[in-house]
Amino acid sequence: MKFSIVRESLIQAVQDVVKAVASKSTIPILENLKLQVTNDYIRITGTNLEIGVEYTIPKEKNQVQNFTVEQEGSICLKAKYFNEIIRKLSHDLLEIEVSNQFLITIKSGQSEFSLHGLDSEEFPKLPTIIEDRVFSVPSDLLKSMIRQTVFAVANEETRPVLTGVKWSLESGVLTFIATDSHRLAMREAVVEADSEYSFQNIIVPGKSLLELSKILEDSDTLVEIVIANNQLLMKMDNILFYSRLIDGQYPDVTRIIQQQAKTTLDINKREMLDSLERVSLVARENKNNEVKFNIKQDLIMISSNSPDIGKVNESIQPNHVEGEELLIAFNTKYVLDSLRIIDEENILVQFTGSMSPFIIKPKDFDKYLYLVLPIRIY
Amino acid sequence: MKFSIVRESLIQAVQDVVKAVASKSTIPILENLKLQVTNDYIRITGTNLEIGVEYTIPKEKNQVQNFTVEQEGSICLKAKYFNEIIRKLSHDLLEIEVSNQFLITIKSGQSEFSLHGLDSEEFPKLPTIIEDRVFSVPSDLLKSMIRQTVFAVANEETRPVLTGVKWSLESGVLTFIATDSHRLAMREAVVEADSEYSFQNIIVPGKSLLELSKILEDSDTLVEIVIANNQLLMKMDNILFYSRLIDGQYPDVTRIIQQQAKTTLDINKREMLDSLERVSLVARENKNNEVKFNIKQDLIMISSNSPDIGKVNESIQPNHVEGEELLIAFNTKYVLDSLRIIDEENILVQFTGSMSPFIIKPKDFDKYLYLVLPIRIY
Repeated sequence: MKFSIVRESLIQAVQDVVKAVASKSTIPILENLKLQVTNDYIRITGTNLEIGVEYTIPKEKNQVQNFTVEQEGSICLKAKYFNEIIRKLSHDLLEIEVSNQFLITIKSGQSEFSLHGLDSEEFPKLPTIIEDRVFSVPSDLLKSMIRQTVFAVANEETRPVLTGVKWSLESGVLTFIATDSHRLAMREAVVEADSEYSFQNIIVPGKSLLELSKILEDSDTLVEIVIANNQLLMKMDNILFYSRLIDGQYPDVTRIIQQQAKTTLDINKREMLDSLERVSLVARENKNNEVKFNIKQDLIMISSNSPDIGKVNESIQPNHVEGEELLIAFNTKYVLDSLRIIDEENILVQFTGSMSPFIIKPKDFDKYLYLVLPIRIY
Repeated sequence: MKFSIVRESLIQAVQDVVKAVASKSTIPILENLKLQVTNDYIRITGTNLEIGVEYTIPKEKNQVQNFTVEQEGSICLKAKYFNEIIRKLSHDLLEIEVSNQFLITIKSGQSEFSLHGLDSEEFPKLPTIIEDRVFSVPSDLLKSMIRQTVFAVANEETRPVLTGVKWSLESGVLTFIATDSHRLAMREAVVEADSEYSFQNIIVPGKSLLELSKILEDSDTLVEIVIANNQLLMKMDNILFYSRLIDGQYPDVTRIIQQQAKTTLDINKREMLDSLERVSLVARENKNNEVKFNIKQDLIMISSNSPDIGKVNESIQPNHVEGEELLIAFNTKYVLDSLRIIDEENILVQFTGSMSPFIIKPKDFDKYLYLVLPIRIY
């Protein structure tokens, strides 16, 4: 193998591929990336067996030639070192060559690195996915759908399905749901899909989605999505992103979302967020980050108490309160997480009594909502 | 105690004082700061017994009144909570009041915090220092003298004196020396002091200097310095900074600094730094971060080798080489630390054979130098 390549093109590719590479693994080959050089393209692959990224560097970009191949070939090499070295090199062009014994030489200007590689035959194959059904989502929309739900997945592995985001598609509407059983996030969006194509109970690991969203562009370029038995494949420009799916049945949460509100707050999001952030300075020191909301007709009194530190009282004037007065307690963290994700200026908070989950959603946008379970007041 | 205060003035004061407060201590009072309110000034103090900071908020600043006192008094309260709370409050004016039982109430806008405080009588007294001899250093100069030496102190406590920076004053020249016995940093500067005033072997803990430099302004305002038996006091506008001194005799290092160079490199700092940063990607994986310098008349060949990863070769063209050709090995980390601190464009590296310490210093500024011990080449 012998080729020269524009450094920037290689950095861009490796930067996306390393997202899928294990930083430390009991299987050493997983700390490597695979470099595959042909006359027509250069392909770089990484996988930790949970996710996989395959990046194809095209021969030309904007009519500039990205690389020149003298001899085709392939090799595996430690992702961490390769990534750091190509970033630190000073010249715009790199010459890369593999001799026998899997020794890879990287030359640039007055620098020459020789690294020990591994046989590319040892690298795991990425899954083969039959693309019989495909749907498409703009990259930036997919990125915000992830951001607006993934924070609510469970971190603990006690119920594996809850560590993933549940995807479903029905009549062209894609829905993401995440819950750790204390709070829930839901986001839906109309996407480009065959109206007869539908699926339920596709559970994508939260960790995979976090890595994916680092790779997704902030543009409306369409990402093609293929769902197979136990794998998900996303096709972007030059990039294929694979993720394992989580086995199991996701709990049915539709019932708790469709409830009748008895008290509805219309409130400025910023004011509620600032107020809760102050209150949480005290609340985070008590059990469950407990905060009390005392809702009157024109005023909300917020309070928290931690025996070791002291107590705090706040009040906010809502835009409007509809329905019954209410005293309710909840975990500040869950409500703060939701408020930080909402981009709109005003929100609605819908309560159904002090023992039922309440809903937080933007006032003027009905495509996402959050649901939080209250804490019992003794 | 009852007063109101401009929030910004209080934030500024607390921000500097918390540098001296223990974040976690077996002596709970050390996690507190002391708030002392009089009709003329408000004083805030913190100490972890190693260092102490006393900040006096004046009644007026730029003809704006900083506070109004209704009732004098003093109290101790947990620095961490107080600092966070005043930062999060939304209004420009805070009302603070202490009731009996050491309960302190902080009101601002629609927020009211009540925190448990402690009796201010329990707070440790800062040392009393007799100011018979004083010298002065501009704040920004003192800050760079710290930055240019403190990185070289020992982190391990095996020889406590080496965890400090040695200060000496002779004929109006203040000298800082730091060494961990593998490398050494020295910085000197002419300061405002009585020409007959001199001292040797004043050892200031590195950690104290790091905290001090966070408080020092980037201006040429003079800082007055008083040295007592086992304490150092720095007097800034509104701030007194105390530090314990380290007991013991600092090793005499003058001999190893005054040597005759056999090989002198005149080299661009940026080029040597970039090159060594690349080489260190390989070197940091071998024992001692070992790098070899092979100095020829017109070229320096730099190399390193780590059996697990591979090897690297670099070459740099120096501006000029004077004296003998040389092969020498050293720990890259020590040389990188020095190069990162040097602000000048060109440096001199002076060698006295492959087994003697070598000197790194700016070419056109002779007030600081670094010394690194080589590694024996077998």
